[in-house]
Amino acid sequence: MEKVGHLINGDVLFDQSGTQPIYNPATGDVIRELMLAPRDTVNEAVSVAKAAFPQWRNQPAIKRARVMFEYKRLLEANRETICQLIGQEHGKIYHDAMGELQRGIENVEYACSAAELLKGEYSKNVGQSIDSWSEHQPLGVVAGITPFNFPAMVPLWMFPMALVCGNCFILKPSERDPSASLYIAQLLKEAGLPDGVMQVVQGGKEVVDTLLEHDDIEAFSFVGSTPIARYIYGKATEHGKRCQALGGAKNHAIVMPDADIDNATSQLLGAAFGSSGERCMALSVAVTVGDDAADALISSLTDKVASLNVGAFDDDSNDFGPLISREHQLKVKGYIDSAENDGAEVVVDGRQVSVDGYPEGFFVGATLIDKVTTTMQSYQEEIFGPVLQIVRAKSMDEAMAIIDAHQYGNGTCIFTRDGEAARYFSDHIRVGMVGINVPLPVPVAYHSFGGWKQSLFGDLHAYGPDAMKFYTRRKTITQRWPSAGVREGTSFSMPTL
Amino acid sequence: MEKVGHLINGDVLFDQSGTQPIYNPATGDVIRELMLAPRDTVNEAVSVAKAAFPQWRNQPAIKRARVMFEYKRLLEANRETICQLIGQEHGKIYHDAMGELQRGIENVEYACSAAELLKGEYSKNVGQSIDSWSEHQPLGVVAGITPFNFPAMVPLWMFPMALVCGNCFILKPSERDPSASLYIAQLLKEAGLPDGVMQVVQGGKEVVDTLLEHDDIEAFSFVGSTPIARYIYGKATEHGKRCQALGGAKNHAIVMPDADIDNATSQLLGAAFGSSGERCMALSVAVTVGDDAADALISSLTDKVASLNVGAFDDDSNDFGPLISREHQLKVKGYIDSAENDGAEVVVDGRQVSVDGYPEGFFVGATLIDKVTTTMQSYQEEIFGPVLQIVRAKSMDEAMAIIDAHQYGNGTCIFTRDGEAARYFSDHIRVGMVGINVPLPVPVAYHSFGGWKQSLFGDLHAYGPDAMKFYTRRKTITQRWPSAGVREGTSFSMPTL
Amino acid sequence: MEKVGHLINGDVLFDQSGTQPIYNPATGDVIRELMLAPRDTVNEAVSVAKAAFPQWRNQPAIKRARVMFEYKRLLEANRETICQLIGQEHGKIYHDAMGELQRGIENVEYACSAAELLKGEYSKNVGQSIDSWSEHQPLGVVAGITPFNFPAMVPLWMFPMALVCGNCFILKPSERDPSASLYIAQLLKEAGLPDGVMQVVQGGKEVVDTLLEHDDIEAFSFVGSTPIARYIYGKATEHGKRCQALGGAKNHAIVMPDADIDNATSQLLGAAFGSSGERCMALSVAVTVGDDAADALISSLTDKVASLNVGAFDDDSNDFGPLISREHQLKVKGYIDSAENDGAEVVVDGRQVSVDGYPEGFFVGATLIDKVTTTMQSYQEEIFGPVLQIVRAKSMDEAMAIIDAHQYGNGTCIFTRDGEAARYFSDHIRVGMVGINVPLPVPVAYHSFGGWKQSLFGDLHAYGPDAMKFYTRRKTITQRWPSAGVREGTSFSMPTL
Amino acid sequence: MEKVGHLINGDVLFDQSGTQPIYNPATGDVIRELMLAPRDTVNEAVSVAKAAFPQWRNQPAIKRARVMFEYKRLLEANRETICQLIGQEHGKIYHDAMGELQRGIENVEYACSAAELLKGEYSKNVGQSIDSWSEHQPLGVVAGITPFNFPAMVPLWMFPMALVCGNCFILKPSERDPSASLYIAQLLKEAGLPDGVMQVVQGGKEVVDTLLEHDDIEAFSFVGSTPIARYIYGKATEHGKRCQALGGAKNHAIVMPDADIDNATSQLLGAAFGSSGERCMALSVAVTVGDDAADALISSLTDKVASLNVGAFDDDSNDFGPLISREHQLKVKGYIDSAENDGAEVVVDGRQVSVDGYPEGFFVGATLIDKVTTTMQSYQEEIFGPVLQIVRAKSMDEAMAIIDAHQYGNGTCIFTRDGEAARYFSDHIRVGMVGINVPLPVPVAYHSFGGWKQSLFGDLHAYGPDAMKFYTRRKTITQRWPSAGVREGTSFSMPTL
Repeated sequence: MEKVGHLINGDVLFDQSGTQPIYNPATGDVIRELMLAPRDTVNEAVSVAKAAFPQWRNQPAIKRARVMFEYKRLLEANRETICQLIGQEHGKIYHDAMGELQRGIENVEYACSAAELLKGEYSKNVGQSIDSWSEHQPLGVVAGITPFNFPAMVPLWMFPMALVCGNCFILKPSERDPSASLYIAQLLKEAGLPDGVMQVVQGGKEVVDTLLEHDDIEAFSFVGSTPIARYIYGKATEHGKRCQALGGAKNHAIVMPDADIDNATSQLLGAAFGSSGERCMALSVAVTVGDDAADALISSLTDKVASLNVGAFDDDSNDFGPLISREHQLKVKGYIDSAENDGAEVVVDGRQVSVDGYPEGFFVGATLIDKVTTTMQSYQEEIFGPVLQIVRAKSMDEAMAIIDAHQYGNGTCIFTRDGEAARYFSDHIRVGMVGINVPLPVPVAYHSFGGWKQSLFGDLHAYGPDAMKFYTRRKTITQRWPSAGVREGTSFSMPTL
Repeated sequence: MEKVGHLINGDVLFDQSGTQPIYNPATGDVIRELMLAPRDTVNEAVSVAKAAFPQWRNQPAIKRARVMFEYKRLLEANRETICQLIGQEHGKIYHDAMGELQRGIENVEYACSAAELLKGEYSKNVGQSIDSWSEHQPLGVVAGITPFNFPAMVPLWMFPMALVCGNCFILKPSERDPSASLYIAQLLKEAGLPDGVMQVVQGGKEVVDTLLEHDDIEAFSFVGSTPIARYIYGKATEHGKRCQALGGAKNHAIVMPDADIDNATSQLLGAAFGSSGERCMALSVAVTVGDDAADALISSLTDKVASLNVGAFDDDSNDFGPLISREHQLKVKGYIDSAENDGAEVVVDGRQVSVDGYPEGFFVGATLIDKVTTTMQSYQEEIFGPVLQIVRAKSMDEAMAIIDAHQYGNGTCIFTRDGEAARYFSDHIRVGMVGINVPLPVPVAYHSFGGWKQSLFGDLHAYGPDAMKFYTRRKTITQRWPSAGVREGTSFSMPTL
Repeated sequence: MEKVGHLINGDVLFDQSGTQPIYNPATGDVIRELMLAPRDTVNEAVSVAKAAFPQWRNQPAIKRARVMFEYKRLLEANRETICQLIGQEHGKIYHDAMGELQRGIENVEYACSAAELLKGEYSKNVGQSIDSWSEHQPLGVVAGITPFNFPAMVPLWMFPMALVCGNCFILKPSERDPSASLYIAQLLKEAGLPDGVMQVVQGGKEVVDTLLEHDDIEAFSFVGSTPIARYIYGKATEHGKRCQALGGAKNHAIVMPDADIDNATSQLLGAAFGSSGERCMALSVAVTVGDDAADALISSLTDKVASLNVGAFDDDSNDFGPLISREHQLKVKGYIDSAENDGAEVVVDGRQVSVDGYPEGFFVGATLIDKVTTTMQSYQEEIFGPVLQIVRAKSMDEAMAIIDAHQYGNGTCIFTRDGEAARYFSDHIRVGMVGINVPLPVPVAYHSFGGWKQSLFGDLHAYGPDAMKFYTRRKTITQRWPSAGVREGTSFSMPTL
Repeated sequence: MEKVGHLINGDVLFDQSGTQPIYNPATGDVIRELMLAPRDTVNEAVSVAKAAFPQWRNQPAIKRARVMFEYKRLLEANRETICQLIGQEHGKIYHDAMGELQRGIENVEYACSAAELLKGEYSKNVGQSIDSWSEHQPLGVVAGITPFNFPAMVPLWMFPMALVCGNCFILKPSERDPSASLYIAQLLKEAGLPDGVMQVVQGGKEVVDTLLEHDDIEAFSFVGSTPIARYIYGKATEHGKRCQALGGAKNHAIVMPDADIDNATSQLLGAAFGSSGERCMALSVAVTVGDDAADALISSLTDKVASLNVGAFDDDSNDFGPLISREHQLKVKGYIDSAENDGAEVVVDGRQVSVDGYPEGFFVGATLIDKVTTTMQSYQEEIFGPVLQIVRAKSMDEAMAIIDAHQYGNGTCIFTRDGEAARYFSDHIRVGMVGINVPLPVPVAYHSFGGWKQSLFGDLHAYGPDAMKFYTRRKTITQRWPSAGVREGTSFSMPTL
């Protein structure tokens, strides 16, 4: 069976460590084996990176950026391979993997502007003949731990910016679908990155803890669930490291009475069911304002939800694929059961879906649930499955209060044509990423990604302008030249002449 | 005896709590009593601030800035009173207090540019007809815990920027010299700040812990010693708060063979002994490169150090005042003892200083120690007293290695005329604030203050541009208007006409 | 009779020059006499400014900014005097003068952030060990020529930013109402500005031409009519000077079928008739979309327009005052005549207005004209009087085409509730300042003011961020220190030791 | 004979126009013929560009940037072809052409960050519930006129930034060496640029004047000699266009007594003689401080200058090539004659150089002239040939005064090790681009290029951050949503439901 190894000092390493199976979630089969890095391998990765750092940080930023220019080209040239790997291990449909990869590549594009982004601020004459300026210096060796749901995009949120800022990077990909992550890391060498600047170590909690406790790791970026995010953040900061840890979400859309229902419907379909709802920005709750809006929306959604196609990644006519694991499939079905038991109305039921030719796949069909209330477990927790729940509110104020009361504050959206409603919503809602008629308001790569409340631990958001701040340390220099001896030249006698 | 109370909802509160004495360190006398806020008072302060927040955050930034314009004027008009209060409780000489206050006021000046600083980034057409922009929204209620050594300046590093960003602020000043802090907080009301937006609670660890555990505090700024900074940072982040915690320092100057020794001497005097060395940016170690430079420097320094005047704050001919407490006086003398015992040479000895008319004052005289090595306790720890130690290095590389090996990385300086040496030093030295012939490279208010290594916990530095980031949360809005119904007007029939 | 003189080197100068009468436009009386600077006086002003420049440009930006902090306070403390002077010579009602002054003061507030605004960009390692940064250096002596309609605000658009950038400034105010301009210039001295840095020269075209041809004037800012703006721009650039020249306007509002008519009405009243329409941002044309909107708007406006009060500046119950001169009064009436003759419908006619107690004042009453077409002279030219014209369009596209076809492109506005319409309008309309339900979209002081097409000649807009660019010259420094002699210390033998 | 045509609407056009010979300056042979566009062809180019504009400006900036990502790759892939074309028509040595092209490509890299660069400023709550933001909108059709000395680089200073900002571009290349310019323009189509967005028209003054007078050209960028720059700037601004016109130069280096003479020598060789001195940043005057420095420099330079190789472009062992034309060759020799006649000392004389195998080439050999004074014609004018002149000054002040008195202020440099001297020089010298031990201080692509005094007409510098300002027009939107009807929902009844 093919093994998925580590990337150390420019080469893929298969050491003598334990392994763990990797599944194709559409078939339920084990298709590869993941190497589990022992502590020594992790330490080796860090020490190689540390050794590579001094030379890399001394490169002009534009030279580091040029690695990214070439890297962008290589990612584009190898789109197909990458999306195959994603599909095999994650299960998302090929067109969805292409979208993921494209969003990832956009972060590489942004990293290409490193020379612009790293400019410091220069102040002439902060005092008489005293100047002061700031520099954004790299941190050293930094690490990223990434989730299964975006094996290409989330790593690309992190390492391109970390690298162009002058850092060395250690990536620990998800155990579920590590092959795409490893593959894109390997392409960096071809793009001209010196060996040792980028490393990949495979594994689970032991790898994470070794990194968290390692003296030579300066910073951690994490994306995953909230409990783990809280753990990582606590442990990393306790060990004196900088950390940004992105956690779970429960993203609500408000559907206003004046919303264009056709548009809202088509937007919600993609946002709720795309990638089986396994996205931290998935739109999983629609809060309707007024029963008219609710009824119109349900009526418009029902047939369309029922006719969504679920299946394997390599058939582009599918709308979404299986869930990541058998456990997760059962958990999602459990949430639907609980909603039903709590009195909600399952309008479209995906629990019994069967996919031709894939009897053992981890599938759940698209599910639409009406009359959900905020006390239900299915409302309070993140389902991370193809389930759209409708909560009925009487007013916009009530709808906003519902959203603000939730523990998560990642993304949210309002459907309206009205400028005033949109402005009031975006100003006041306590959520970090807000869409106005945009159901998945993932900021573009030149803005930054981050939720509020339990959705993010740390001061700085992921990628974009905040990433430059996160991956560098401010140094401020204040300079005065006290003696005008050479300039005035009176008593000047220079030994070299 | 006069009591020093809390500031709650615009009024000074004297509740039924325990008290703690406040000393005049020049006389050793108790001159006031500090109220120690019980948990209820702290909670009351937070709840008042929380109630004041919604209205304050809705004010246009320029209106918040105008409070700061007036506040600057009031601080200037009341300079004398403020510096008296500082002198009485801290002991620093009046001219030094004036300098402290001026640096504090400069942060108020910077806060006056809030409307400029809070601008978000606007991107037209991130996709076809989709726009996206970022806003820097205030956090809510934030807190600051400030040290005895700058009872006016360090609070002014924090609350002016926190307030103009739209937050409410809870200040817990040092127990040693709280009166100046309270006084400047009271002036805000006269400047037009609404009641409840700024609160002061007096006390010690219990107050701190209550704040650290309080659900409604969103962020913490701290300046103090490294062990406390680490504690605050750990606890604050564990409770889901944003935190920046500034700790201790050991600031080295390199004196190069080509340095202008007269200039270096006069710079070092102020930087080492000003404010009795009780500054986190005090220059407490000079690393000479080559014995010629060492001998020249010692020779130039000795008489000047010996003739520095130590005494009470209200005599402007004094160069510096007493230490903050009897305990600290003994601790500083102990460091000098230990250096002597470890084999260093005490060139000028301030241990037996006596100040006419102040027999009980907490004084230590200016002390110069040569031949200090990096293994001595007096080198490894922060003395925070009027003690300048000389470490002799053979080369610039050795000097830089010494600095980089120290646990602290707050400030550092090089004395040279040579552009190349200065540039190499500022590029490579692992210290956050670097001076080139500037011995106290405290960044001006429009840059940011922060050390590296054990000198700062957190991602963002204090005051300046970083303060805006620290006191706000990024919100990113993505907007599309899907229906051109009104614009194209085809089927449009408007109820209001 | 009181004379209005020049300000040279810190003192008001009354030289032996010709004079010109200054009127009170409400009474028609001559109330002061303006000195007309001969060429020698202008030259003297420039040479004094040139001499003051080197020292002023060397001041730290924060010190220059502190003059502005104090200047803001002085302008506020002297509001009443300034608005009296404006009222006496310009005629605008006291409350309107207060508004003008406030907008002017906001530019002083912005200038207080000079230290932030003047930061250059610093790039470490543009090549190996080569750094590069930019500085925004002041130009030298710059001049401003300002119009009668804002004798305080428009000068304050210019000189505060010019001065804090390190320039010296020559102001030539309007001949009609120079007293307020002179008064505010004089206050600068009290604010701490060194003599010679700010000068005022009174006069007309000869003064302008002398300045335009003077070798030591580096830049010109002008606000006035388009023919003069074109002349100034041509001549200034021909003489190698930087120039920004703001000209005339014809600002249209589109009233959409879904607009809140009550709100549109009240907004239009102020925007069309405030300051008698003598504002370059006056909203003088409303383009209605659909006859329903037109009829509703006319119906809502008619009585309100008819009941507006016109009168003298010192009665705050008046809505607006006289026009600036007898000639201008006749010209405005002539435009109303021409519209009537061309077939438009004069709904409210202000031509025969009479003001109790002011029989000789230069008054025209509020005038509303319907059914104006784009071929009429009253449409094509700028009236600069209290006249609101209605153009009826059938669709939003037609309304936008009308606006885009006009020679001017200063300001414009749309009244709608619809997000899509607002976004389409602001994206595509070829006008520099756009309001969405904001009829006078004058940018705040921390943005910049500038129209498109014939409304502005030059690359950079007035005040705000563009002003810093306009009043400074970019200098880019690239630095490498080639020899590590001192640092490596091999053959080092330093003469000073 | 091969003809060099225009690029219109994506295709190369050979119309029925006159032609003009193109020479190989190494052989003196005519090698191609240039088409001279008649007025109709120019008008056609503009009208095609105008038609292409609306769609191009509506593209998201990131999509426009992606054309530049691909364009960078294509320029790199076709380096050899481009440098051959440059060498054939301009004569510069292949390695020098490679350098030129690389600097050009760096501007393409910068243009790739368009989405970052075009961000506007967003201000929430400029008033209560009023927001304001700025957009940088493209101008429309803009034109560039480029000089013979950098047929690839200077066009690349202009059109990449103009295009990514959303403009359409008309390039008129130099008549001497148009082929490389045309070739790189053609590559844009392959990179994905829509037809019509980029056009090239060949020709001379008639083409220029047609463009200058054309109503549909919004802006002009020009690089060339000062008399033409002044003409272009005057005419363009007179016709209401935005213009930046870069002219001549006379770039001085100060050699201080403490300079590293070996380093200064090797730097000066390249900076003075590279590309035969036909660079607007060529370092053509060295001002020595003190006779010791002068003598040491001359002594170090003489042999090295004498041994420089001049010859044809395709032999990489050559240091520089021929001048651009017979006329120019004679003119340069005339300057050397005049210096000699005026009393300067020709230390190395390149007038009689002969190049094996190229008897008719337009060569002048490397020439070094000592004891030049500021009154000589050879000092006052730009020679634009391989001639380095030495002016001897007694002090740094005198050296700086010499530089400041020159009509040009493009670039300058100081050779010193002393931080104070370097800082004083860069602060005070009245020149736009300053090198510290960097003899050709051409700013990198992410800074901007521009001289002072007669070296640049216009407010904004070329390429870099200023280019974004130059190629866009600021639009400021102010927005308020007055009615909360939809949000509060009281009387809401929406026809679509």
